[in-house]
Amino acid sequence: MDVLAGGGVTSAKGYQAGSVAAGIKKTAALDLCIVASDRPAAAAGVFTTNKVRAAPVDLSEQRLQRGRRARAFIVNAGNANACTGQRGWSDAAEMARLAADKVGVAPEEVLVASTGVIGVHLPMDRIRAGVARIELSPDGGAAAAQAIMTTDLRSKECAVRIQIDGATITLGGMSKGSGMIHPNMATMLAFVTTDAAIEAAFLQAALKAATDRSFNMISVDGDTSTNDTLVIMANGAAGNRPIAAGTPEASLFQAALDEVTIQLAKAVARDGEGATKLIEVKVNGALSDRDARLAARAVASSSLLKAAVYGADPNWGRILCALGYSGASVDSNRTDIAIGDVWLMHDGKILSFDRETAVAQMAGPDVVIRADLHLGSASAVAWGCDLTEQYVEINGKYTT
Amino acid sequence: MDVLAGGGVTSAKGYQAGSVAAGIKKTAALDLCIVASDRPAAAAGVFTTNKVRAAPVDLSEQRLQRGRRARAFIVNAGNANACTGQRGWSDAAEMARLAADKVGVAPEEVLVASTGVIGVHLPMDRIRAGVARIELSPDGGAAAAQAIMTTDLRSKECAVRIQIDGATITLGGMSKGSGMIHPNMATMLAFVTTDAAIEAAFLQAALKAATDRSFNMISVDGDTSTNDTLVIMANGAAGNRPIAAGTPEASLFQAALDEVTIQLAKAVARDGEGATKLIEVKVNGALSDRDARLAARAVASSSLLKAAVYGADPNWGRILCALGYSGASVDSNRTDIAIGDVWLMHDGKILSFDRETAVAQMAGPDVVIRADLHLGSASAVAWGCDLTEQYVEINGKYTT
Repeated sequence: MDVLAGGGVTSAKGYQAGSVAAGIKKTAALDLCIVASDRPAAAAGVFTTNKVRAAPVDLSEQRLQRGRRARAFIVNAGNANACTGQRGWSDAAEMARLAADKVGVAPEEVLVASTGVIGVHLPMDRIRAGVARIELSPDGGAAAAQAIMTTDLRSKECAVRIQIDGATITLGGMSKGSGMIHPNMATMLAFVTTDAAIEAAFLQAALKAATDRSFNMISVDGDTSTNDTLVIMANGAAGNRPIAAGTPEASLFQAALDEVTIQLAKAVARDGEGATKLIEVKVNGALSDRDARLAARAVASSSLLKAAVYGADPNWGRILCALGYSGASVDSNRTDIAIGDVWLMHDGKILSFDRETAVAQMAGPDVVIRADLHLGSASAVAWGCDLTEQYVEINGKYTT
Repeated sequence: MDVLAGGGVTSAKGYQAGSVAAGIKKTAALDLCIVASDRPAAAAGVFTTNKVRAAPVDLSEQRLQRGRRARAFIVNAGNANACTGQRGWSDAAEMARLAADKVGVAPEEVLVASTGVIGVHLPMDRIRAGVARIELSPDGGAAAAQAIMTTDLRSKECAVRIQIDGATITLGGMSKGSGMIHPNMATMLAFVTTDAAIEAAFLQAALKAATDRSFNMISVDGDTSTNDTLVIMANGAAGNRPIAAGTPEASLFQAALDEVTIQLAKAVARDGEGATKLIEVKVNGALSDRDARLAARAVASSSLLKAAVYGADPNWGRILCALGYSGASVDSNRTDIAIGDVWLMHDGKILSFDRETAVAQMAGPDVVIRADLHLGSASAVAWGCDLTEQYVEINGKYTT
């Protein structure tokens, strides 16, 4: 698998993107984009588990359930179109229509996503004027990744290339965070495009599996948003025979999709509001996959541990404590814990580790925490970020 | 029900307490105390749900399960005696023995609790010397409340008096936080004493019910500690006929116990690490008690909402969002939301509220958030605190 430096949603064949500063954000930054395939594409999506859902989430999910196909998506930042009632729904539908007219497809083939403040109606006049000004191009991916940002500090893109069945297949994506990120569904916005030909049913299954290993394993602050959306389009421009479930080609595609979604998810965790460090939690020896996932996520989500990572404090007690309340089976007399390469605890006994060496492992920007539960053979990896004063500042001042 | 100003664990008849600065904390502050009844007492306890549990938790729970009786408890702060293996267990047992010798009872009649750093063995020489210096007195309650503090800024005490069956019955208690506070069991240390005569089985049931309305409804940071303990002793010194379940007297006692535990729990939430405001979340109209509790706790626990309260931002979107992911049934088109006396949302529609008035409701030190789900008749109240830069500072520097 090759990683394409600078790759994103327009790296795969047959995709174009265009972005504008429509004036939805308070700043003059890009805030509206369209990504389109030049031919029909299979599509799949995973959406927020929050019972309070934004109109575009319902609209996109309905369209995917009906057709499992899409030609384009339109995304705005600066306004989530959530808690906006009936008008929210018609605004989302109009966004799809505007994008459909722009790229010359049917409105039902367009998916919609929004992110930003909740409870304020979309400025549809600005969106209409914005769409009119959008120009799509095959190298518009980087700008689109900027257009979907809210409090993100960095845009998040990623692309990989694989060979399947003699064809060169590219997968590229973009994502945005950065508050309200928590395990349980796609907890942010992310979009993946690929030129692979792929059966729609397998595409949905592959996306769900990838989500469980990527976006469902990251946490910024424990809140699950009303707008979380992850969608993928696969337009077949690579010319391979359609990939079906259970084949060797499916495994290759799954690995590539996992890689793209994990990179995008890690980028979201690393860019969590106020974050200065990425925390990677690797749990081995769990009794079951579920236990491994629970344990890894509990550690990555612990406010106390996140604050300790910020302070570079090798506080193994907080790690063990989070394992204990995770819901996973844990025997504190058999647990090993390490920070980076420094083992702090073995079989539940505190090792006489060198504190300075352990502190150095926490200097960042990547802090790795390992735990071996010695109860089974399941493992999982979760990602989070440190908790800083800046998180509080950002969220104490964000306007309703 | 009368509230006794300045009351605590020695307000009820027949109790004495004594405290010393034994040198377990790094400072010269009080850190070791004994509370004792002058006669046998029924006792009950509720303990952490964390699978990693400190030795004193296991010891105390075992003793209560065997006997449902106690004569005293000994508590130290500065060291949690958690993750300390076999020696941790023998140290906890020795603490009980030392206290038993001090007050002249059997070691099995003494309960033990510890709080502070994890994974370090107790300095037993200091504890032995400390116990030797302890002097118990009937007005030692306030000092005991100080001796159990860790990062708490204020000691927490409370006492009430009721008339039952012609007898004057007093209940008094003390508690400590202030990190690692989260719904799910007694999430901190708390001790209640009463001179009521009461059947042991009802005492346990009453304590569990009170916990579900008090300590299980507070949250500081989402972490459940290894040491959470709530115990009660009832020594019958008031001279009433023993209170049994299902009687009018039981209801009176339950109301008084609820009051004491709610006051102690609110004090813990208010004094959460770095907190400047107490958040009270009242949910009405839920489909079930469970839903009401889930919804209230989700709002009180949301990092985003806690940061918004700190910043006095009337961000009803975050309240609705937390209701949505709480697990409770929520219909965003029927939900009402208020901050203080200002209704922000009715039937899912945003009201044109005066922002300055809403901001004023969040000035503190008490911020009330109301939600009516309009789906049923169940209600619940939860408490939390705001999330501040100081929380991060405290937890980034706390030593392992």
